[in-house]
Amino acid sequence: NVNKAMNGAGNLMDFLDEPFPDVGTYEDFHTIDWLREKSRDTDHVTIRNKPTCYHSKESIWELIKSLLDAWSGWVVMLLIGLLSGTLAGVIDLAVDWMTDLKEGVCLSAFWYSHEQCCWTSNETTFDDRDKCPQWQKWAELMTGHAEGAGAYVLNYFLYILWALLFSFLAVSLVRVFAPYACGSGIPEIKTILSGFIIRGYLGKWTLLIKTVTLVLAVSSGLSLGKEGPLVHVACCCGNLFCSLFSKYSKNEGKRREVLSAAAAAGVSVAFGAPIGGVLFSLEEVSYYFPLKTLWRSFFAALVAAFTLRSINPFGNSRLVLFYVEYHTPWYMTTQLGKYPVLEVIAITGITAVLAYPNPYTRRSTSELISELFNDCGALESSQLCDYINNPNMSRPVDDIPDRPAGPGVYNALWQLALALVFKIVITIFTFGMKIPSGLFIPSMAVGAIAGRIVGIAVEQMAYHHHDWIIFKNWCRPGADCVTPGLYAMVGAAACLGGVTRMTVSLVVIMFELTGGLEYIVPLMAAAVTSKWVADAFGKEGIYESHIQLNGYPYLDVRDEFTHRTLATDVMRPRRNDPPLAVLTQDTTTVEDVETLIKDTDYNGFPVVVSRESERLIGFVQRRDLTLAIKNARQKQDGVVSSSVVYFTEDAPQLPASNPQPLKLRRILNLSPFTVTDHTPMETVVDIFRKLGLRQCLVTRSGRLLGIITKKDVLRHMAQMMNQDPESIMFN
Amino acid sequence: NVNKAMNGAGNLMDFLDEPFPDVGTYEDFHTIDWLREKSRDTDHVTIRNKPTCYHSKESIWELIKSLLDAWSGWVVMLLIGLLSGTLAGVIDLAVDWMTDLKEGVCLSAFWYSHEQCCWTSNETTFDDRDKCPQWQKWAELMTGHAEGAGAYVLNYFLYILWALLFSFLAVSLVRVFAPYACGSGIPEIKTILSGFIIRGYLGKWTLLIKTVTLVLAVSSGLSLGKEGPLVHVACCCGNLFCSLFSKYSKNEGKRREVLSAAAAAGVSVAFGAPIGGVLFSLEEVSYYFPLKTLWRSFFAALVAAFTLRSINPFGNSRLVLFYVEYHTPWYMTTQLGKYPVLEVIAITGITAVLAYPNPYTRRSTSELISELFNDCGALESSQLCDYINNPNMSRPVDDIPDRPAGPGVYNALWQLALALVFKIVITIFTFGMKIPSGLFIPSMAVGAIAGRIVGIAVEQMAYHHHDWIIFKNWCRPGADCVTPGLYAMVGAAACLGGVTRMTVSLVVIMFELTGGLEYIVPLMAAAVTSKWVADAFGKEGIYESHIQLNGYPYLDVRDEFTHRTLATDVMRPRRNDPPLAVLTQDTTTVEDVETLIKDTDYNGFPVVVSRESERLIGFVQRRDLTLAIKNARQKQDGVVSSSVVYFTEDAPQLPASNPQPLKLRRILNLSPFTVTDHTPMETVVDIFRKLGLRQCLVTRSGRLLGIITKKDVLRHMAQMMNQDPESIMFN
Repeated sequence: NVNKAMNGAGNLMDFLDEPFPDVGTYEDFHTIDWLREKSRDTDHVTIRNKPTCYHSKESIWELIKSLLDAWSGWVVMLLIGLLSGTLAGVIDLAVDWMTDLKEGVCLSAFWYSHEQCCWTSNETTFDDRDKCPQWQKWAELMTGHAEGAGAYVLNYFLYILWALLFSFLAVSLVRVFAPYACGSGIPEIKTILSGFIIRGYLGKWTLLIKTVTLVLAVSSGLSLGKEGPLVHVACCCGNLFCSLFSKYSKNEGKRREVLSAAAAAGVSVAFGAPIGGVLFSLEEVSYYFPLKTLWRSFFAALVAAFTLRSINPFGNSRLVLFYVEYHTPWYMTTQLGKYPVLEVIAITGITAVLAYPNPYTRRSTSELISELFNDCGALESSQLCDYINNPNMSRPVDDIPDRPAGPGVYNALWQLALALVFKIVITIFTFGMKIPSGLFIPSMAVGAIAGRIVGIAVEQMAYHHHDWIIFKNWCRPGADCVTPGLYAMVGAAACLGGVTRMTVSLVVIMFELTGGLEYIVPLMAAAVTSKWVADAFGKEGIYESHIQLNGYPYLDVRDEFTHRTLATDVMRPRRNDPPLAVLTQDTTTVEDVETLIKDTDYNGFPVVVSRESERLIGFVQRRDLTLAIKNARQKQDGVVSSSVVYFTEDAPQLPASNPQPLKLRRILNLSPFTVTDHTPMETVVDIFRKLGLRQCLVTRSGRLLGIITKKDVLRHMAQMMNQDPESIMFN
Repeated sequence: NVNKAMNGAGNLMDFLDEPFPDVGTYEDFHTIDWLREKSRDTDHVTIRNKPTCYHSKESIWELIKSLLDAWSGWVVMLLIGLLSGTLAGVIDLAVDWMTDLKEGVCLSAFWYSHEQCCWTSNETTFDDRDKCPQWQKWAELMTGHAEGAGAYVLNYFLYILWALLFSFLAVSLVRVFAPYACGSGIPEIKTILSGFIIRGYLGKWTLLIKTVTLVLAVSSGLSLGKEGPLVHVACCCGNLFCSLFSKYSKNEGKRREVLSAAAAAGVSVAFGAPIGGVLFSLEEVSYYFPLKTLWRSFFAALVAAFTLRSINPFGNSRLVLFYVEYHTPWYMTTQLGKYPVLEVIAITGITAVLAYPNPYTRRSTSELISELFNDCGALESSQLCDYINNPNMSRPVDDIPDRPAGPGVYNALWQLALALVFKIVITIFTFGMKIPSGLFIPSMAVGAIAGRIVGIAVEQMAYHHHDWIIFKNWCRPGADCVTPGLYAMVGAAACLGGVTRMTVSLVVIMFELTGGLEYIVPLMAAAVTSKWVADAFGKEGIYESHIQLNGYPYLDVRDEFTHRTLATDVMRPRRNDPPLAVLTQDTTTVEDVETLIKDTDYNGFPVVVSRESERLIGFVQRRDLTLAIKNARQKQDGVVSSSVVYFTEDAPQLPASNPQPLKLRRILNLSPFTVTDHTPMETVVDIFRKLGLRQCLVTRSGRLLGIITKKDVLRHMAQMMNQDPESIMFN
């Protein structure tokens, strides 16, 4: 077998013929080599597509197998769509029920939410569909009194109690069973998609615990959402289904293509926005996104959205899909941070205590947002729509002219202002708690509240002062010229855009949410403006900042590198460093190799013809070297410390007295990536990004000079941006 | 100056310090080197961003200039959007007027189209808005008789005459003034965006002539459309505005980023679908599409769509934006092909003669499509909606149940069947004529006709046989279960998808056109099915086929290369070929170089330390070498045929008797791209695609073995797909 491999092409494809396991895999918290993974897949394809010379029965089976293999990508997408859609639907239902459980219970069936409870009630009319005898608040159920200060206090107390219970359960489950389930997960998924390995981050336990604790965290009423976590959940589904097909489970590159599509499915179910999901994955999350993945993402996103829609029991599809959404990267270093459970309990308690009295913070944030987006129709009974109607207007019409605000609107304005301050502050403090949490809905809520306040102010100014210059040209008296709901929508888009720096995908998600292609211009203007303003404070969105805080080696495709440094300025060894640790092709002994492995912690070693000529012939991974020597020492007779290691095609015939040579050409990468020392770093950065390299060797006129790793590139980029390169700690 | 350059970093950035012009530019029908262009831009940025140490007045001017430079990308996008939107609007208006001119004229103002003419008429009611006294058909105007066989024949005759006049004008203008204005332009734009140079293809003359002849060609009633040509027109606008900013005009890579965005603006105005335009550019046209270009494309597409919308005088925005669209790649080798003018006249004549009698082919194709998409409402008076109404139905309602078809529908079915055959045949023959022509609308029309026919058939079957198993479960009697218009829409998407192999962008364009997010699932299913079916016949869409027919060196990002060949199998020289043409760093004379240039036609030469060691030190372009020697012979004293050419950092001090050496390090690319001979071709193809290389050198242990060019890669890929590599001729 070994001989066969050595007679073969001799390149890294030979890994598959390896007798010992794990060669060509990666260690935890290491970066994959995209080029290597792509070659491995080609090899796999070639093996898969080998001509069939079996009997007809077997050949049919072979045909089915090869068809299944060819279609496995689409099958995986279908499964991801179905499972993530189902999970999102279950989460929606559970959150709905548990959020209402904090306030009361349905007597006819305790597993009904408030809305479902009153739906089944026959006594409900359109006007008070929220009130029905089957649904009882806790105070009414326990004391029989529905009104009064005592009932209010009891409801208030139980509300806080339930909230604390939910959040305690959430944080405990995360701590005990799956620490990776906390946070939004998007920064880690971005890092994983860029080629980093974090074992268990997308595992079955994470999937299970994140789903359960997400329901608990959202239901507890904390200022967080489920968009990021749903992306994480969908990626866990993707990883799960990858393991069904060896094509995906054995190739880290192919696996990442599936995960990109799964991320699209996650956003798709979070918002019911399949196209927005695909663009989010393309713009925000993915690293390597070939066109094939675009189609597959689109397919997965569609399946997921329609699975969710068919599960959804409410029927009013669009705005229910747009349900609860929030998030939490960044760590604020508080004393509480050291006691995650206490922190969660404290924040939950404060949130519950402060949120309950204000009607705009008590309800779920998504309900708040949809109320803020709403235009005040004639039938609208909300406080925000308490306008003084023109008595001449005989019947309700669709196009209501601007009206003066009534006392309800002024009251709502005050409550909204308080809610705005509360939301901003509590969302900052909810950041980084050890529970699943998303960012979208809290940001959108902050923006929507601000937008609605501005909208009402402009509307009232336009009504009372339509002779002002700014209103004169476009607002005649009696016309409907200001729609406060649109201001809220634009505000939500602007705030979310400022936090995440999304542009195209943000606009698409917003118009898929609201269904109005005609609002695309104000939304676009808001997205671009907020991006420009936010970029003036710092180029990084919240996910990139989080990646940096966590010290992941992430090479952002968007950072432009425009300095004139050369590869020779970045490569190691530096001028006064010891020379590069290299192996020679036919003079190193097993002992030398073992010493080198013990003394250094490099991930791989270049192999040269001889120390004098320094001509490069290949690159060998530390992990493969260790495994190969261990394996040879155990299984191959005559391999001792003084055995010579041969990386050449043929080992010389040695007299029997000499120790048996160890042939290691099969683990040698014969096509290491090289650049010359004069190559501009800008080109090197481009190559690292586009080809997804782990390391690159530097040569001059065929002589090996040094090595540049991905971390060297990242450190150099930080240095060029006037950051202290030593401050960058890698995980 | 030369010395300064030689003391510098010594890499290819030195080109800018060159005293002689044109160094670092490309010849016509050559491929650009993306890595080099990127480095040149970096250099440009560094120069642009140099610290300002001027007086305050100058520094404000500097600030303004640097701001303008930073914002120039957005300014260019704005200008492209404005101009391409305006051009599209003008084209729409002109086509509308000239199409109607074939039938008659407006008496109140001859420059009004039929619709505008009758709009201004006061006597028009809703029912017969097409009939008004101001609008007169030619027969009525000339003879006074509006009806009768004589009038019909005269109208028919004049219709053909106008059509012939328009198409003759179109083909003559293209022939005389701008041969590049013919066809759809998309295959060439794809090729240009991939890095090919075709001078004048996006020039001012092409822009002007294409705009004018597009109007003529579409108005003549040929089975062609304006989508592809509008993309070409928008790219010409992009190229025009690039020349305003040196950042874009001097860098072929940056210019292509702008052109990608312009292509998005073109599709945006062709369909009024900004997001579809961006995705079309991403999925179908572009080669290198960084995220920055995504945002800018979106901006340009939006500006263009809204400029068009604000010009559009009809107001019923969506379906007017969806106006006339067709196209024509491929050359069918007919005898007529040798006489382009005769060909156009003949096809126009046949089209006009056959199209006039059938009402479904006489009207413009876009009107046909919008009628086919329409659901039959209660007010609809079209022949296609001639159903037998239930006498019990007292008043028109929105949700009309399925009804039996009346004689009008059966009549329409026959005419549609004839129109289907006519459209398929004539569109094939319209292919490849030398006038601007687009593909989208003819394909969509064919699909829509077929879809509508199937839709009506299913509807009638469901009405008459609702006990059949296939209808039983979802179609109760008296329900509205089949919408023939939806069948037409899905048919149009399927046909277009089969021709172009678009998926995501197709679905997005279709739903932006029709405004219905809920039809996304049938559209998606149609797009994916038609892609799979069409892929079974051949992997290439019509644009890729056209690129191959034209022999452009286009490396498709979508073709998967999964063979196990190595770089050594592809590189030149082959085993029995003469050795690689190389230059040495310090032993070649000017005469040797001139002989080498005369004897070979390679685009560049590797430079090695010596012929013995074969250690690679750089790569020099043929064009730069020729220019440098010519320049030195003219301006530098003492450079004669026996002068030694030095590519080293310092030339030795020679005695005065020796001829003056020629130092050429400044034109030497010191960072040529290398791979080892063991590198799998799959990796090499990937590198060529992602980095946009022109050529790549092959080494083994530091020794130069050979070279692989982009054309070698393309030839090898064709060979691996069992095509004859020699059959591939490159332009």
